[in-house]
Amino acid sequence: RLYCSSSNATTPPAPTSTSITNLTIANKQQLYITDAVTPGSVFFLPHGTRIFNKLITFMKTQQRQYGFEEVITPLIYRKTLWEKSGHWENYKDDMFRVDGADLEKEAYGLKPMNCPGHCIIFDRLDRSYAELPLRLSDFSSLHRNESSGSLSGLTRVRRFHQDDGHIFCSKDQIKAEITASLKMINEVYSIFKIPGYKLLLSTRPESYIGELSEWNDAEAVLKEVLESTGQEWTINEGDGAFYGPKIDVILKDHTGKEHQAATIQLDFQLPHRFNLKYNSKENGVQLQPIMIHRAVFGSLERFLAILIDHFNGVWPFWLSPRQALIVPVSSNHLEFAKTVKAQLNNDASNAIHDYKFHIDIETRNETVGNKIKEAIKKGYTYIIMIGDKEVESGKIALRKATERKTENLSVEEVRQRFIDLEKSYE
Amino acid sequence: RLYCSSSNATTPPAPTSTSITNLTIANKQQLYITDAVTPGSVFFLPHGTRIFNKLITFMKTQQRQYGFEEVITPLIYRKTLWEKSGHWENYKDDMFRVDGADLEKEAYGLKPMNCPGHCIIFDRLDRSYAELPLRLSDFSSLHRNESSGSLSGLTRVRRFHQDDGHIFCSKDQIKAEITASLKMINEVYSIFKIPGYKLLLSTRPESYIGELSEWNDAEAVLKEVLESTGQEWTINEGDGAFYGPKIDVILKDHTGKEHQAATIQLDFQLPHRFNLKYNSKENGVQLQPIMIHRAVFGSLERFLAILIDHFNGVWPFWLSPRQALIVPVSSNHLEFAKTVKAQLNNDASNAIHDYKFHIDIETRNETVGNKIKEAIKKGYTYIIMIGDKEVESGKIALRKATERKTENLSVEEVRQRFIDLEKSYE
Ligand SMILES: [Zn+2]
Ligand SMILES: [Zn+2]
Repeated sequence: RLYCSSSNATTPPAPTSTSITNLTIANKQQLYITDAVTPGSVFFLPHGTRIFNKLITFMKTQQRQYGFEEVITPLIYRKTLWEKSGHWENYKDDMFRVDGADLEKEAYGLKPMNCPGHCIIFDRLDRSYAELPLRLSDFSSLHRNESSGSLSGLTRVRRFHQDDGHIFCSKDQIKAEITASLKMINEVYSIFKIPGYKLLLSTRPESYIGELSEWNDAEAVLKEVLESTGQEWTINEGDGAFYGPKIDVILKDHTGKEHQAATIQLDFQLPHRFNLKYNSKENGVQLQPIMIHRAVFGSLERFLAILIDHFNGVWPFWLSPRQALIVPVSSNHLEFAKTVKAQLNNDASNAIHDYKFHIDIETRNETVGNKIKEAIKKGYTYIIMIGDKEVESGKIALRKATERKTENLSVEEVRQRFIDLEKSYE
Repeated sequence: RLYCSSSNATTPPAPTSTSITNLTIANKQQLYITDAVTPGSVFFLPHGTRIFNKLITFMKTQQRQYGFEEVITPLIYRKTLWEKSGHWENYKDDMFRVDGADLEKEAYGLKPMNCPGHCIIFDRLDRSYAELPLRLSDFSSLHRNESSGSLSGLTRVRRFHQDDGHIFCSKDQIKAEITASLKMINEVYSIFKIPGYKLLLSTRPESYIGELSEWNDAEAVLKEVLESTGQEWTINEGDGAFYGPKIDVILKDHTGKEHQAATIQLDFQLPHRFNLKYNSKENGVQLQPIMIHRAVFGSLERFLAILIDHFNGVWPFWLSPRQALIVPVSSNHLEFAKTVKAQLNNDASNAIHDYKFHIDIETRNETVGNKIKEAIKKGYTYIIMIGDKEVESGKIALRKATERKTENLSVEEVRQRFIDLEKSYE
């Protein structure tokens, strides 16, 4: 079992039909590529990057509501750190070693997890009980040296990103933090309309560290919180990590295959290895915090694969990398099309939080029918038709690519519609 | 001279008094730390991450206006790639080597630049003249194995980030692209109110590749564009890279020391090494694109150091990691303070582009005078006082931390003030 993991690198899904569906859609929509010069690392093309970045922006917005503070931490660390964290002993073969010209003295490891870096941040400053729970978040890329034969699309990779988070808290804060984490998971998954995920509690294994009473208390808290969600949950007796019990969230793809996404793991061990302390309310008394590893998406790459499968390439407007295609009926309407695009995007403004959309103009010399067919194939969410009538009336014809119903709206009304769709995550 | 660099790793500034100023402010404001487990890699603490992320969000907004498309590219690549790009021959000692359990057959290199990865993306798809100029942007972290003795704060590091961009274009598009790049640099630096930067043109060195006529044409274009800016520029005869001429942008810190920030580099070579082609207007005729390497901030870490020096720790509101501190006069006013904070941040909304601010509440049991003194020391931009009068009238007392003038405004007016400041980058 992997020491201190906020993902499931030990039991990843094998290549499946999901990956194949993914690849067809990914190619058609030009979302990402891979290359033999770096097996298991994904190149996100512009349209894939749009989805990836939207997911991260979305998650940062949600995490802010739950009191997380983002940090940016290094990628390479000396062996000393990995010895301290236990990775060198337990996980060395799954890590990439890094060497440089003047590094003969000590090897570096390319990080497979963010936790040790976050422990360094916790440890550096003098911490008070008043700062707890301290919730750090990190979207850094992580590397794990999976065997080349096992690599597959987005679901089993060597380089991936997590919406990683570590909560440093006192014992009596565990319950509230787990409750909040499960609430956040539920809120996020509802927004993506992912049906029926499974909650899985893994309990104390035969070989464990820490006090038995500590384990019993922690498991009791987790069960109590799981019960209070009203959701179905199952137990995996003895399948917890040796350093603490955990809750995993399991999603199904359209073939019924299960994928682990979110995770919440209690950890009594890493704070001990790093000798983390905070000043308690009692003058002069220092206590050790508990650490909770948690991720809501889990691996961003794997979550994206699940979304591609879930939406089957038909993205909701807010996530769509091609939100609208403006189709001028003839070349006479091209100028008006450009004006409409600029207005829909409020191009006059370069403010940081202005709503900007992914809108293209179809400029090829094709029949309108072919242009629409192509737009649907490429995955555009909306089509905006512009002909003589639209130029005259100033109203543009808006339709969903997958529906025949057309609405005639002013440019301002369409912009407001688009803003409302993004605001409500639809 | 470094092959194909969009930064100046060859002539970085040595440790200076600027770094020392930086460190004092960075410690006082808790912006970042470094640690012996990874020399030359910066840990951005929550407040440093706020500034860092704001700079990136800002740059993405600006780049969108200039037609850049972001991509996300891998960090490790096989030796084969670095041989093709010329890095293995010319730059191997400055790169980190990466090894894994089953990687004996071929070494990997941790990328010092994004250019080869972008060439792979250009090369993968069938490219048409209609797609040019293709402008790719990338904010990936980069690693260069600087000697440990030379490392210093944020200005000389082993891990850094760039607002990196590569423009693939035809020869007759060079002039427009360079003009746009210089315009963007000017707009960005104006927003930061950085006074008097220097433009430096480096021309053909004694040892060069490509045609002499190509060089002459390119240098003539660069000179013409520089002249048309109306800004002062100087020439560095023979100091260009062997693959093309370049324009560097030099900033001064408060001690007068110069730092390279933005760069624009023409490259005739890399497209050749990667055998990049696009289909021209003429049926069946393929042409080789020119590549322009450009960065506006340059190294984000170094630019942040320049900003810390430039603002001397007094951040403009939009960049401030501590935008406001709410000071309740007594514990009776704490509840109202919390309501005010929630309203200022529009906590009820979790929309992606809503304006959210960095606002704290001072909860310690101190005199008001001490609370204000502490707020100024920590670098808060605004202070909001809340006492009986404010609770009764619903108007809150807003003052800049560094000024004595107080305004009494409704919460909605303060939120609007904050939004306006962010929108206008003040
Ligand atoms: Zn972790
Ligand atoms: Zn470059």
